Amino acid sequence: MESAIPEHLRCPRTHERRMGNDYAPPYPGWSARAPAATQQVVMGYFGVQSHGPAMQGRACAALMKIARDFALPDGPGHHDLTHCVDADGFDNMIAIAYWPDAAAFERWCATPAIEAWWNADERLHEGLGYFREIASPRTDHFETLFSTPDRLEGVGVVMGGVSGELREHGYWGSMRDRLPLAQTDALAPSGTRAVIAGTPAPGQRVRVAGHTHIAMIRSGQEWTETTGQERQLYLEDMAPVLREGMDFLRDQGLPIGCYSNRFMQHLDAHGAPLQKSFGLSYWRSLADMERWAESHPTHVAIFGSFMRYVQALNFDLRLRLYHEVSVLKADEQSYEYINCHARSGLMNGLAPAA
Amino acid sequence: MESAIPEHLRCPRTHERRMGNDYAPPYPGWSARAPAATQQVVMGYFGVQSHGPAMQGRACAALMKIARDFALPDGPGHHDLTHCVDADGFDNMIAIAYWPDAAAFERWCATPAIEAWWNADERLHEGLGYFREIASPRTDHFETLFSTPDRLEGVGVVMGGVSGELREHGYWGSMRDRLPLAQTDALAPSGTRAVIAGTPAPGQRVRVAGHTHIAMIRSGQEWTETTGQERQLYLEDMAPVLREGMDFLRDQGLPIGCYSNRFMQHLDAHGAPLQKSFGLSYWRSLADMERWAESHPTHVAIFGSFMRYVQALNFDLRLRLYHEVSVLKADEQSYEYINCHARSGLMNGLAPAA
Repeated sequence: MESAIPEHLRCPRTHERRMGNDYAPPYPGWSARAPAATQQVVMGYFGVQSHGPAMQGRACAALMKIARDFALPDGPGHHDLTHCVDADGFDNMIAIAYWPDAAAFERWCATPAIEAWWNADERLHEGLGYFREIASPRTDHFETLFSTPDRLEGVGVVMGGVSGELREHGYWGSMRDRLPLAQTDALAPSGTRAVIAGTPAPGQRVRVAGHTHIAMIRSGQEWTETTGQERQLYLEDMAPVLREGMDFLRDQGLPIGCYSNRFMQHLDAHGAPLQKSFGLSYWRSLADMERWAESHPTHVAIFGSFMRYVQALNFDLRLRLYHEVSVLKADEQSYEYINCHARSGLMNGLAPAA
Repeated sequence: MESAIPEHLRCPRTHERRMGNDYAPPYPGWSARAPAATQQVVMGYFGVQSHGPAMQGRACAALMKIARDFALPDGPGHHDLTHCVDADGFDNMIAIAYWPDAAAFERWCATPAIEAWWNADERLHEGLGYFREIASPRTDHFETLFSTPDRLEGVGVVMGGVSGELREHGYWGSMRDRLPLAQTDALAPSGTRAVIAGTPAPGQRVRVAGHTHIAMIRSGQEWTETTGQERQLYLEDMAPVLREGMDFLRDQGLPIGCYSNRFMQHLDAHGAPLQKSFGLSYWRSLADMERWAESHPTHVAIFGSFMRYVQALNFDLRLRLYHEVSVLKADEQSYEYINCHARSGLMNGLAPAA
């Protein structure tokens, strides 16, 4: 049993852990581990927004172009192709790419072909929206959790290693206990989101600045390997409850501190859906995320259906679960939108009233 | 908004609260307040155990005798009459009495008529069991929580006052944040329960010693004033789920640290059931109680049904809810059993294997 916080990031705590060393989790969990030399990773969300079936082919081609560019020098170590429909009924396809080295990402971004494509006037006139939401947390600003130690997902794929079984999971508050920075910081938010270029509206290039300690989570599940009773339980009991909670956050999240939520479906290289999905959300603070998770009826229902599920299966699951949570400084966030509707991503709630 | 910890019991924290001052609870809550001069209260559980309908009349008469003795000088300021059936199928009627002053309780106990009755050999030969489970927490060793500031229950009735709206409630971990002692103590358990006189079996007088930091909770609800949709939701949705969780703790609680659980029904002075009930349980530690509440499927189901209930009613409840939680030093506990079966109360799990 080891701590989720890797040894080289441990320091004397001024904020104590919720559980002491005598705590034993009821089921195992693992974290991804990066080499101690890793300083800062990049989680890049490269989106294509479109409206209506007629535009889907063009949007798909744009996504493929983005994914092809990942193969250029200094490209990401791993990427996923995903899709969701947002609250305004737009399709959003996102290529999510991970770099274990922020400097490599900067070089990739500065590749003349990439830079020229992103800055070209054509991007405003193709009938598509584009966005880049880039989170680049230093290694003490994020944590990961996996239900199995093989086949990691997300940032875990590029981190290169995996921990032993973790102590800090399986209880409310464990997310915070796994975050290295939370050893010495309450992670209170400060500052405000602001539009720093353009006007949130179609036809515009918009840049949004985040504020200190925006919290971001990608929380996913894969049901490829489930069979029989487990598969039926997942598809008929859990999945609908999960979708309801995700729809709530997407449509009514702002008043409780959720700036944006997308319930994403993985796609294969040909655009066909895989048996994998995840929620991707941005929050005013880690505390806002914690409160929703702990007490909002929509998440209590998700947690309750999950607990019934694991109990029915006696903790013997084929379902794979993982999450990655970051608490971001202002300089670890970059949000850019080209020709997107006013409520897209981190613009949500910043747009002038209609 | 004020702290659940009364001003005269506040001290510099070495264990921080889970929520900061910017936290606002999603619905109101109140604590009972005692005068600053109050040092130690007494929660006395005076039980009569019987088996089968033929003995109920005699058991009821014994309970009435106990309740009559409460009227003697130095008697309690408040008492309830309650009933449950235990895991062995025995009826347990308990008169629960509260003293705001431990010295008054000691004098009452030492009243010759009371002492002589308790110590008389006849108690072993009436076909009934008797027990006294006495918790006498100092004021920094317990906390209370009420969903309305009027008509308090339990120890709250004898404390004499009520707080303003509390900050520390509505999130996981708030119970600990309300306990004055938890400001400076992790409340880890130490020592072991032990039989210190007699043998756990019928026909015996048995005394059990508790250990440091046994946690005890009385958590109740009254549905007298519910009507229409709310009443139907309570009786048909919540109450069955609550009973399932209570049965689990009663029958299978020991491995997760629950020494004893009784789901008690209030009775009126004639033995007829009132529309009030509560769970009464003793735990190895506050942490064990927290873990069950936060993650065990049986309590997650209770919490989930409650959250659906408050959401359906838009937080406008006629249901009354309260709890009182104590974390007890060894000298704040006294457990005595006369002619009770071996798994009664705090003897549970201490008895030799059958």
